[in-house]
Amino acid sequence: MERIDDLQLSGLRIIQDTELFCFGMDAVLLSGFLKVKKGGRLLDMCSGNGIVALLASAKTEAARIDALEINPKNTSLAERSVQLNGLKDRVFITCGDVREAGDIYPPASFDAISCNPPYIPEGTGLTNPDDSKALARHELKMDFTDLVRAAEKLLKPKCSLFLVHKAERLPELFIKLSTGRLEPKRLRIVCPYVTHEPAMVLIEAVKYGNPGMKAEPPLIIYEPDGTYSAEMREKYGY
Amino acid sequence: MERIDDLQLSGLRIIQDTELFCFGMDAVLLSGFLKVKKGGRLLDMCSGNGIVALLASAKTEAARIDALEINPKNTSLAERSVQLNGLKDRVFITCGDVREAGDIYPPASFDAISCNPPYIPEGTGLTNPDDSKALARHELKMDFTDLVRAAEKLLKPKCSLFLVHKAERLPELFIKLSTGRLEPKRLRIVCPYVTHEPAMVLIEAVKYGNPGMKAEPPLIIYEPDGTYSAEMREKYGY
Repeated sequence: MERIDDLQLSGLRIIQDTELFCFGMDAVLLSGFLKVKKGGRLLDMCSGNGIVALLASAKTEAARIDALEINPKNTSLAERSVQLNGLKDRVFITCGDVREAGDIYPPASFDAISCNPPYIPEGTGLTNPDDSKALARHELKMDFTDLVRAAEKLLKPKCSLFLVHKAERLPELFIKLSTGRLEPKRLRIVCPYVTHEPAMVLIEAVKYGNPGMKAEPPLIIYEPDGTYSAEMREKYGY
Repeated sequence: MERIDDLQLSGLRIIQDTELFCFGMDAVLLSGFLKVKKGGRLLDMCSGNGIVALLASAKTEAARIDALEINPKNTSLAERSVQLNGLKDRVFITCGDVREAGDIYPPASFDAISCNPPYIPEGTGLTNPDDSKALARHELKMDFTDLVRAAEKLLKPKCSLFLVHKAERLPELFIKLSTGRLEPKRLRIVCPYVTHEPAMVLIEAVKYGNPGMKAEPPLIIYEPDGTYSAEMREKYGY
């Protein structure tokens, strides 16, 4: 079933389909973590229904935002959301495979790339390859190495890949980023409560960057009483 | 100037010299993070004045604890602390180089290895190679790769290396651990305050371990009012 949700930001709205993967907090956090220079060009990979691209249109001064998504059901929704928000001169949706991204866009053409990729390795847990929700969660059509390869090819030198991922895969992410000469420069862990394990990590990795990472304060979602933390309310509108 | 400090744990005391490197909170946190099976054998490398080995004698049921330290001024203090605490049948201090640890101890002979190594790469900041404090802080006589090589050789398979290190070096640590087939299995970031950047990270890496890390809740040192957090008071006696 389709529905239109208000994104509580600059009047933006998004069309979602409850039978597909609806956006989660991770996409919202990624949109607040990423940075694009004014007039720059952003690519959002694994863009789903376009949530990160839409939020980035309001949160950044990027001149052009491209969104790449493999599932045509999602790109159909995303294209209609772009129309709905009057963004068709700034946000461009492409239906395509991350493994072919290097042929879809010109090399070294982006000032920033963002990605909220599938978190779960293929073969872990039950999956149905025809299921759109499984495609969004599991590395069925791409894995992290494919993402690194695409980012290395498409980013301008000294420009950044912004990621949200599972904390438990951090060692593997750092190792694979290094194979693409993407140096982690910023790390933020995200904890539901201060006393809980991190649920996610936000990573900025710079193409051809020098070693030396800045670890930022943890992002805590909820106060002990279950209400949203001040940062979540003030920065993300929860 | 030498002084004897009470470690507030099982009556333990430590002899320190204020002209050498006195132990810090990082060593105390490492002693609470490490695990050794009952009757097992622990090696503490870069052991300084012996603080981690002494604390581990009370906090674990290790049958034997070896401590390796390159600076003879430190091993002299550590040996006297062992005597002072009546631990000479359980804690053994060796003056030696981490780069030769693989020849000092039998291969695959330890159930656990701990290390609070120098944090700062050689050539970063001003250092005096004759200065004992510089030796404790800077990678002058060893670097992280030397440590990984020693741990890989000396740990039994499926046994753990426990580390405390700087958060900013996390990507490099994960990459170098992987070269020694030491798989990060546990990560805990340490923040002075919940709103501050992590100061340190605690890492457990398992020799020949399978991928998949558990990220633990952040360890917060101080409450917003500047008093120690409940965990610091209850677990570490601050």
